[in-house]
Amino acid sequence: MDRPARIQDVAAAAGVSVATVSNVLNRPERVNARTVEKVRSVIAELDYVRHPGAAGLRAAHARSIGLVLPDIANSFYARIAKGAADAAYRQGYALSLCHSGDDPEREQGYLSMLVEQRAGGAVVVPLGAATGRLERLRRRGVPLVLADRARPTAEGCSVSVDDVAGGALAVRHLLEGGARSVLVVNGPRGIRQCADRYQGARQAARRFRGAALEQVVVESMTIECGAEAARRLNRLPDGVFCTNDFLAAGFCRGLAERGASVPGDVRVVGYGDLDVAGLAALTTVRQPVEELGSAAIELLLDEVEAGADHVHEARVLASSLVVRETA
Amino acid sequence: MDRPARIQDVAAAAGVSVATVSNVLNRPERVNARTVEKVRSVIAELDYVRHPGAAGLRAAHARSIGLVLPDIANSFYARIAKGAADAAYRQGYALSLCHSGDDPEREQGYLSMLVEQRAGGAVVVPLGAATGRLERLRRRGVPLVLADRARPTAEGCSVSVDDVAGGALAVRHLLEGGARSVLVVNGPRGIRQCADRYQGARQAARRFRGAALEQVVVESMTIECGAEAARRLNRLPDGVFCTNDFLAAGFCRGLAERGASVPGDVRVVGYGDLDVAGLAALTTVRQPVEELGSAAIELLLDEVEAGADHVHEARVLASSLVVRETA
Repeated sequence: MDRPARIQDVAAAAGVSVATVSNVLNRPERVNARTVEKVRSVIAELDYVRHPGAAGLRAAHARSIGLVLPDIANSFYARIAKGAADAAYRQGYALSLCHSGDDPEREQGYLSMLVEQRAGGAVVVPLGAATGRLERLRRRGVPLVLADRARPTAEGCSVSVDDVAGGALAVRHLLEGGARSVLVVNGPRGIRQCADRYQGARQAARRFRGAALEQVVVESMTIECGAEAARRLNRLPDGVFCTNDFLAAGFCRGLAERGASVPGDVRVVGYGDLDVAGLAALTTVRQPVEELGSAAIELLLDEVEAGADHVHEARVLASSLVVRETA
Repeated sequence: MDRPARIQDVAAAAGVSVATVSNVLNRPERVNARTVEKVRSVIAELDYVRHPGAAGLRAAHARSIGLVLPDIANSFYARIAKGAADAAYRQGYALSLCHSGDDPEREQGYLSMLVEQRAGGAVVVPLGAATGRLERLRRRGVPLVLADRARPTAEGCSVSVDDVAGGALAVRHLLEGGARSVLVVNGPRGIRQCADRYQGARQAARRFRGAALEQVVVESMTIECGAEAARRLNRLPDGVFCTNDFLAAGFCRGLAERGASVPGDVRVVGYGDLDVAGLAALTTVRQPVEELGSAAIELLLDEVEAGADHVHEARVLASSLVVRETA
C-alpha cells in the first residue's frame, strides 16, 4: 500500500466494521477477545497509526466541552488550559474557552451558554465560592468538574493540589539542610492557599526537634512586599519560606540590599515555580498545573462517557520540590 | 418594576417585536429612524441594560468560532486568546480553543473539525507557513483571519504588528537620549521578526547624523545568550537594542558582571514587554498583543455577519515604547 493505512483498510482486512475497529481502539472491553486479537494483528500488519485526536475531532458527533476560568492571560490558568486542551484533543473533543474575566455575571453567562449549546460538560476553575451557580448547573444535568478546587465527592469530581503537603515540603527542605530557625513570609490570612501552606510548614516544623518557626504576614504577594519584609527584619533566620515566588524573589533582593548572601547567610524557598523562579534561580515548590487541566478533563469525560458507571472522585495532586540556587 | 427590565419589556412598551429591539441595539442602520428613536427612548425610560455578551451567548443560534494557536501556555499566545475571548464574548460568540501544540497535523485536525462542526469561522495564529492548509480551508468557504501574520487582502483579513516601526522606535529612543554608537543584539537571521526589527533599527540610525549601528547575531533569544553577548564585547557601545526582552535581561546581567552600570555606562532597550521586562525594569517596546486577538475577531465577525458587504483588510498595529530604568 503506497499510502498510510486508514481505519477503513483495517476494517476490510479484518472483516469487521469500522465501528468495531474503533471499539477495539477505544473500548476493547466491549469487544470479544478473539475479535480484539484479530483486529490488533491487522493493525500491526498494516502499520496503521491512528492520529490521536484528529479522527475523533472530525467525527460528526464530536461534542464540545467547556473550560471556564477566570483569566486566560494569567500563566497559571493558561497552563491549566494547555493541559485541558491536550487531554480533550486526545479524546477527540472540542474545547470551548470561557474566559470569565473575573466577572461573576460573565461566568454565569458562559455556564448558561454551555447548557443551551448542550455541551457535554464543563471543567470549571471557579471564581470565589460560586457554589450556588455551579449547583444550579449540576441540577440541570451538565457534568461539571472543578479544577484547582476540592469539593465533596457527593457533589461531583474535582482536582486540586495539596497545598498543606507543599508547605511541608518547603520547610522540611530548609530543616533537613540544617536551618533551625525558619521564617514563613506569608500572604493575607483570608487566602485559603496561604493558610494551607502555613499549616504544612507548621506540621514539618513540629517533626523537627529544636526547630523554631515564625510567621510574617505581608499585605500582598508581590516582589516589593517581599523585599520590604527582608528590609524590616531585626534578626536574620537560617531559612525563609515565602508562600509564593514573587515574595521569594523580592525577599532575596531585600537580603542583597542588606549585604546578606543567599544561600550562604539565609536559605530561601519559594512556591509555585512561576517564570520569576527561573529568572531568580529560586528553589521552589512546583505544582502540577497542566495536570490540573488534564486530570479534570479525564474525570469529566469519564462521567460523560461512562454515564451511570461513573464514580465521582476528588483527586488531589502532589507538588514537588525544584532545587535551584537559593536553598 | 421591581426587577431589571428585559428586552421583552422594552419591546412591549415600544410596541415592536423583540427582533426589532435587537436590531436597534445591534444594527440600527436596518431600522427606520423613527422606530430607532422610539425604542431608544423606551430603553432610557426603563433603564434597560443589556449585559453585553450573555444575551447573545444564550441565544439558541449562538455559533462557535475557532481560535487556532501554537501554544496556549506561552504568554504571548495566551494574551492573544484573552483579547479574542473578550471580543467574541462582546458579540455573543463561543470560542473554540484549538491548541495545536506546535504540531502541523494537529493544527490540520482542528481546521478540519471547524469545517465539519460548521464553525462560523476561525482566527488562526499559524504554525510556520501553513499557507496550503489555510488555502484549502478558505476554499471550503470558512472565513479565516490570520493573527500575528500579514497577508495580501486578496486572500483574506489579517492583523499583524509593525515590527519595522517597533525596531525604529527602540533605536530612535537610544539616539535621542544621546547614544551615538548603538549595538543591535539580534536573534537568528531566519526569523522574520528579527529581520524586521533590525530593518527598523537601520532606518532610525540612517536619520541620525553621526550615528553608528552594529549588529551581533546570537544563537537563540535567551537570557543566557544575552549575558554571553555582553561578556564577549571588546568595547562597550553607548546604547544596546536587544530584539527581545530575554536577550535584554541577560545583556544587563552580563554588563553587571563586567562592572558596567545600566543606564549609566550603557543604555539598554528590549522588545516585547514580556513579564521579564517588568522584573528587570527594562525599557522596552510593547506590542498590542491582546489587540491582535480582539481585532482579528472583529474582522472575522464582520466577514461572518456582513457577508457580501465585507471588505478584506490587512490591519497593521503599532507598538509603543515603555520607558523603565534601563534607557
